Amino acid sequence: MPNDNGAYAKREKYYMKGELYPFLRVGMQKVNLTPTVTLGTQGRTVREENAPVLIYDTSGPFSDPSVKVDLKEGLPRLREPWIKARRGMPHVTQMALAKAGIVTPEMEYVAIRENMNCRELGIETYITPEFVRQEIARGRAALPANINHPEAEPMIIGRNFRVKINTNIGNSATSSSIEEEVEKAVWSCKWGGDTLMDLSTGANIHETREWILRNCPVPVGTVPIYQALEKVRGRVEDLSWDVFRDTLIEQCEQGVDYFTVHVGIRYGNVHLADKRLCGIVSRGGSIMSKWCLVHKRESFLYEHFDDICDIVARYDTALSLGDGLRPGCIADANDEAQFAELDTMGELVQRAWQKNVQAFIEGPGHVPMNKIKENMERQLSRCHEAPFYTLGPIVTDIAPGYDHITSAIGAAQIAWLGTAMLCYVTPKEHLALPNRDDVRTGVVTYKIAAHAADLAKGHPGAQIRDNALSKARFDFRWRDQFNLSLDPELALRYYTEAGHTDGEYCTMCGPNFCAAKLTHDLRKLK
Amino acid sequence: MPNDNGAYAKREKYYMKGELYPFLRVGMQKVNLTPTVTLGTQGRTVREENAPVLIYDTSGPFSDPSVKVDLKEGLPRLREPWIKARRGMPHVTQMALAKAGIVTPEMEYVAIRENMNCRELGIETYITPEFVRQEIARGRAALPANINHPEAEPMIIGRNFRVKINTNIGNSATSSSIEEEVEKAVWSCKWGGDTLMDLSTGANIHETREWILRNCPVPVGTVPIYQALEKVRGRVEDLSWDVFRDTLIEQCEQGVDYFTVHVGIRYGNVHLADKRLCGIVSRGGSIMSKWCLVHKRESFLYEHFDDICDIVARYDTALSLGDGLRPGCIADANDEAQFAELDTMGELVQRAWQKNVQAFIEGPGHVPMNKIKENMERQLSRCHEAPFYTLGPIVTDIAPGYDHITSAIGAAQIAWLGTAMLCYVTPKEHLALPNRDDVRTGVVTYKIAAHAADLAKGHPGAQIRDNALSKARFDFRWRDQFNLSLDPELALRYYTEAGHTDGEYCTMCGPNFCAAKLTHDLRKLK
Repeated sequence: MPNDNGAYAKREKYYMKGELYPFLRVGMQKVNLTPTVTLGTQGRTVREENAPVLIYDTSGPFSDPSVKVDLKEGLPRLREPWIKARRGMPHVTQMALAKAGIVTPEMEYVAIRENMNCRELGIETYITPEFVRQEIARGRAALPANINHPEAEPMIIGRNFRVKINTNIGNSATSSSIEEEVEKAVWSCKWGGDTLMDLSTGANIHETREWILRNCPVPVGTVPIYQALEKVRGRVEDLSWDVFRDTLIEQCEQGVDYFTVHVGIRYGNVHLADKRLCGIVSRGGSIMSKWCLVHKRESFLYEHFDDICDIVARYDTALSLGDGLRPGCIADANDEAQFAELDTMGELVQRAWQKNVQAFIEGPGHVPMNKIKENMERQLSRCHEAPFYTLGPIVTDIAPGYDHITSAIGAAQIAWLGTAMLCYVTPKEHLALPNRDDVRTGVVTYKIAAHAADLAKGHPGAQIRDNALSKARFDFRWRDQFNLSLDPELALRYYTEAGHTDGEYCTMCGPNFCAAKLTHDLRKLK
Repeated sequence: MPNDNGAYAKREKYYMKGELYPFLRVGMQKVNLTPTVTLGTQGRTVREENAPVLIYDTSGPFSDPSVKVDLKEGLPRLREPWIKARRGMPHVTQMALAKAGIVTPEMEYVAIRENMNCRELGIETYITPEFVRQEIARGRAALPANINHPEAEPMIIGRNFRVKINTNIGNSATSSSIEEEVEKAVWSCKWGGDTLMDLSTGANIHETREWILRNCPVPVGTVPIYQALEKVRGRVEDLSWDVFRDTLIEQCEQGVDYFTVHVGIRYGNVHLADKRLCGIVSRGGSIMSKWCLVHKRESFLYEHFDDICDIVARYDTALSLGDGLRPGCIADANDEAQFAELDTMGELVQRAWQKNVQAFIEGPGHVPMNKIKENMERQLSRCHEAPFYTLGPIVTDIAPGYDHITSAIGAAQIAWLGTAMLCYVTPKEHLALPNRDDVRTGVVTYKIAAHAADLAKGHPGAQIRDNALSKARFDFRWRDQFNLSLDPELALRYYTEAGHTDGEYCTMCGPNFCAAKLTHDLRKLK
């Protein structure tokens, strides 16, 4: 597969070096801008240079034309030497190292990555390698990085960092091949996915995951209960700790960076969903609920939580505590079932931390805007500020076909309030599995929500890109505007399809009637 | 043009009658639902009826198969007899009548329309004809209804009512014909536009507007300065009160229901935009600013504001006080220029009310999420709770091609906080004029934002539709789900394209692995 640089035609791959670890090369994209040209006094033109803008890059080697990627070989194993250098140490997890006061190369990497534009401009911010260490030690941020997935570039999930987005791919019994899923994985990274969940449930789960892991420049998550269920031929009642444990180990060995485990489902709470309009809409949640009811006993995931932690700690696989009782419609939002599960997750996340396991908490789902804040505040207090990772939330149920939008409205708000990572939703949500176009639309929509939250929270340097794009727009530097945008290809297409070609007028108003042009004239009037 | 019922195949046109005015027939759509069928004890099936859901309908006669619309004839003149019956009265505006204690047919019409589902279910709410009258008298709501546009169905704009959306159409010098614009007008009403602004600036402005007015079932707004500028051949400096006055009268006579007038631009405030990154991005704002600077004097719109009110009061054309100094990028949000103009508008809206002219206030634009609340609170206090009518706001500038989404995120929030009407934004914003598909996407996106706000504010009955759709989803009543949705055609297309046909499983998970199906099984377990 050739590197696909269509979106980055005018972007340059750029690497920043480490200071603590000079061997670090932190990859990003650099957008070089043309100068602003204005008419000065006596008809002379005045050129004002515009500083390049650095863009957070989730596509790893795929956006570097000097790296030839062969999917059969897999990506370069970036972190392998760092991991090897730590072999003698008693602990492997980033959290254990952070607690021991060690700033790892991964930590410096993410500090540089989060802070790139400010660093380039010499602006000091709170985001330093030491700050990253403190946040991980405290559990307020997670850096999912399985020692067997050295291909992934380090990234961090926590509310004092850029809001991240997760993309879901994966075949179901009815659709798609391994090639398609790998292609979708690379594709979602191209558009800006920060992590990737492989939710495959059909045949070839193990092999699909292997191809994805070896070629994925971002952390990969899974829901191990899906594969465990395949192993017992779909019979929920036959699930057991043994088969689950073996599945965990299998996936840890492959390099999965985080597991969604529906440990918050407790036998005593399942009945709380009875009153609901839409019951349980989480697959993992419905599986574990059924298991509890059939066996009339506590969930084996809850009972073996410490064992789960002991396994994943050996690989530094992080745990994403899955919200099996998340609401599936507006009517069920913020109900007793949901909040009972959140309390359980708050108890368990502390136990994970005791074992130096990095963890985050999954959240809803479907929540009207007036109930979003309660979710965030309760999660922060009950779950001790562990990172929150939400699916949307969707803020109204009346728009199937547009749920990337119904959910981006909720996602932007909850991220502003403190959610660290957003799970994307595509236009096909509730209707079908997404194709390539849907993945792109879903990712870009969620980059918007995440960036809007970064702006609102005042993430260091976030507004630099907005300001550069706005200035390019006002200057009629169309190509600069598009190169700075989240989807340069689409913006350029809309512009050229309408017959425009770099005119000095705003394309909404037309050449004779343009507010921006008038404003330029005004400035000359004075 | 045949009535286009594609989207409404399973919806029925339904009319509710008035009580104060028994001749009223308030049109809406009724979605008839199939029953929920479950397996009861001993294998018997249990059928539970699902009540029909009424849907607010902006398409007027176009969604009534019993009405044959001939665009050359124009729509039936619904309000003509009501207006005639008031001929002897001293005042014509809804505000004058409201202040005099008169509940007009228009007021009862909107009360029924706002309250339809609760009324059908016999649930009492605060929305009564008398409440509508009080809100109009107080200036907190506007019912734009030019006496020369009797074709339009009454609707109300105010924060105690459903959030409304406006759609913009209109050709520019470079594009589109009259037929195309009329077709877009009807099309935008089909998808849910509550009002329509004709922003045409090219040739045939008068004739285009005439065709639109005679065939538009919703209130129509314009920006008269655009036509005035055409009359002086685009020379801003040649604009004058006389040419503007004549244009106002011409458009009032035609039946325009509201005018955007950029009366908030004052000579002394124009310089406040100098420091901005993006200057002035409102066309009307840049025109009036240039006029002030060229003539070195106060704007003729500001100086003749009382004269403007005297003219529009004779027709009950409402005034939309245009925000000529709205910010055009994130960097310029909430600045001195913007807020100085808002203060001027607060002064003028009271003068409009004194002359019984209905009015609302236009707002931004481009605002990061953390600055949205200040906009709303300041507007409410400075403008005495006059309805706020905002363009988005867009919450980040980095996504041209997706500005329907960047702005829907802001629109939903500001509407929740109290904005009464949202001006839609299409995917082509900043890039090109919208085509039919863009209009549809823009309208549906804004219906989402508006409805999400209605839910969050607790508008009476808003959640009935969500709940009905959620239940249909959970029951696998796919057709009911689609018929209840904002875009039944798109939802059905996504569903069928994936090869699905009314299966009893969730289409995300596939037949063997469906959370909703498992939940149904769970309920049988107990």
